[in-house]
Amino acid sequence: MSYTDEHWMDIAIREAEKSRGLCSPNPFVGAAIVKDDKLIATGRTRAYGSDHAEVDAINRAGKSCQGATIYVTLEPCCHFGKTPPCTKAIIKAGLIRVVAGICDPNPPVAGKGFEELRKAGIQLSTGVRADKISEQNEAFLCNVQKQRPFIIWKAALSLDGKYAAEDGSSKWISNELSRRMVHRLRAGVDAVLSGIQSVKKDDAMLNVRGVRYHKQPLRILLDPYLELEPNSRFAQSAKDFPSLVLYRIDQHSKAPILSELGIELQAIDGHDDVLDLLEIIQVLNQRRVSSLLLESGNRLSESFWQARLIDKCMVFYGNKILGSSKAALNGLGIPNIADAIALQHIQIKKLKDNVLISGYPVFDQLAIPPNDSRCLH
Amino acid sequence: MSYTDEHWMDIAIREAEKSRGLCSPNPFVGAAIVKDDKLIATGRTRAYGSDHAEVDAINRAGKSCQGATIYVTLEPCCHFGKTPPCTKAIIKAGLIRVVAGICDPNPPVAGKGFEELRKAGIQLSTGVRADKISEQNEAFLCNVQKQRPFIIWKAALSLDGKYAAEDGSSKWISNELSRRMVHRLRAGVDAVLSGIQSVKKDDAMLNVRGVRYHKQPLRILLDPYLELEPNSRFAQSAKDFPSLVLYRIDQHSKAPILSELGIELQAIDGHDDVLDLLEIIQVLNQRRVSSLLLESGNRLSESFWQARLIDKCMVFYGNKILGSSKAALNGLGIPNIADAIALQHIQIKKLKDNVLISGYPVFDQLAIPPNDSRCLH
Repeated sequence: MSYTDEHWMDIAIREAEKSRGLCSPNPFVGAAIVKDDKLIATGRTRAYGSDHAEVDAINRAGKSCQGATIYVTLEPCCHFGKTPPCTKAIIKAGLIRVVAGICDPNPPVAGKGFEELRKAGIQLSTGVRADKISEQNEAFLCNVQKQRPFIIWKAALSLDGKYAAEDGSSKWISNELSRRMVHRLRAGVDAVLSGIQSVKKDDAMLNVRGVRYHKQPLRILLDPYLELEPNSRFAQSAKDFPSLVLYRIDQHSKAPILSELGIELQAIDGHDDVLDLLEIIQVLNQRRVSSLLLESGNRLSESFWQARLIDKCMVFYGNKILGSSKAALNGLGIPNIADAIALQHIQIKKLKDNVLISGYPVFDQLAIPPNDSRCLH
Repeated sequence: MSYTDEHWMDIAIREAEKSRGLCSPNPFVGAAIVKDDKLIATGRTRAYGSDHAEVDAINRAGKSCQGATIYVTLEPCCHFGKTPPCTKAIIKAGLIRVVAGICDPNPPVAGKGFEELRKAGIQLSTGVRADKISEQNEAFLCNVQKQRPFIIWKAALSLDGKYAAEDGSSKWISNELSRRMVHRLRAGVDAVLSGIQSVKKDDAMLNVRGVRYHKQPLRILLDPYLELEPNSRFAQSAKDFPSLVLYRIDQHSKAPILSELGIELQAIDGHDDVLDLLEIIQVLNQRRVSSLLLESGNRLSESFWQARLIDKCMVFYGNKILGSSKAALNGLGIPNIADAIALQHIQIKKLKDNVLISGYPVFDQLAIPPNDSRCLH
């Protein structure tokens, strides 16, 4: 019995997964080299600037590449970036067939990688497990297409849609399994963003705890008036976990103390207690943040939703009824149900007595005009 | 290979399911008679006042009962009710073993059925598939234990917990599959209850449509001031679907017109736009309503929750973000998250891009005192 292309591609996909969060802003890609229906070697994108998946696999396979097939989740690059083109390495190694998942939308590649392989007489199949790979690399695809980070909105709600009880208490709406899942989410993104009010309320640290991780995300705090207490857990842990505080350009009272604690500070435009949303995105782009987890209160969340800056929505429902007035997202200003923001590719995960519902918002057909994006606290 | 008791009990459970909603206020019970590892006959509770499951099965099996085992989901009755005792029928038929699911908590039976069988020298096993059967007959068990109907609260919400968009529009928060599920729910209960505002808003009929059903539930409308329009779909369909309107005892303007349309009217205590919740429960008990589906707006729902009159909670989540101020249950008055109403036995059902989360509220350990139950619009 001989295995299908899908079988080998699944191995490449699993291999890619091991590099999640480790090679950003590069996409995390996996490869598998197969000869006579046997796996010769696997490879995956290494740290940014280091080997791509194809080269990693070719190096491991050595001379066995001759006459073999390489399965790779993303179109091989054909340009000199931080590393030489993978297409050249494939041709030189004597591989005779390439099976690829998705096309690389990055303009220097975008089909040219495939073309070069074809011209070299290499047999080519594309689109194998494309859906699964597109989801795996949703952050990278968003970066290329929208020129900004992939933004995940995460909320923990009661079954009646409340983020807190009447007195503001919210520990714990969701169970331990859900909270661990949030820590795994943090470990998989480049940055976590929150507002000063949320951080103050829970003395939140926003780091990864209690789960295995390869790296800690950059903790970004929006703090227009620099209210962050130097003795807060966030500030006190800045030596251990990368931290960036964005504040209003005309504020600077506590800046030196916070800097000494290891916090990076950056001033941007803003007015009253809001910072300019477009400037925030610019900061994220400058730092090559590929994926961002938004763990924010209601107002900040609403700003991102109104500016259509949410790419994925993940709601954890606890097994509770709160019946409070603290409802999530109650001021989006969508007048009629016909204008509701639909979510597609709904996925459900049962976490003991909690439920995680994820989906991807579709803003295209929205009748309401987007906000001016400048209103953000 | 011989089959397990669980195997045969599952057949009895499936048989019982066919009588759901058809023999109320009796519990719906199933039975299976088995000899030499072969199914001889099945039986189930017939319409109220007619044969119980055991007798139904015995009648079908005839003389083959001699030396056989009967599987029955509920303890056989031992008293003369509308029908003679099933224990007598079992003994007389020559059955030598009884395998029962759960004990009948109804005081005239409550273990005495089992005792009588044991005394007659019949071999007895109990508790087989007890969990599944307790859930199947949750309404009956509630009736006996709480002396009132089993009340199901159903809500259709957006993923951010809203029941409508800003302008009040809510068609359709949930998809067709969810709506069909609601119609199946209605077909399985004795009565559906709603408030006049909800019925006016959607010109709601509250009947069963578009799914197979054996009987239509009693439609109960709380309408303190008798605002129901005679030309509403609810009123116009009263000849076809049983309808009861409860109104304030000092109101009577439209009563004759509504009566002529086939609506039954009953006046009860109330003040302003609320009717007395305890009187409503009394009306339900008088009519032997065993199970009630609450399809109400926020205020009415809150009254039931505050009075701890919810036995099961079923929330349908649509694949939408509404971001409106129309949040479900925002005035329960629970101060702190420690006092949140926990739900147990959470179940999840994916309905294409919608999700149904069900659970059973636990009020026992609630710190807040229950409402005086007299506030209901």
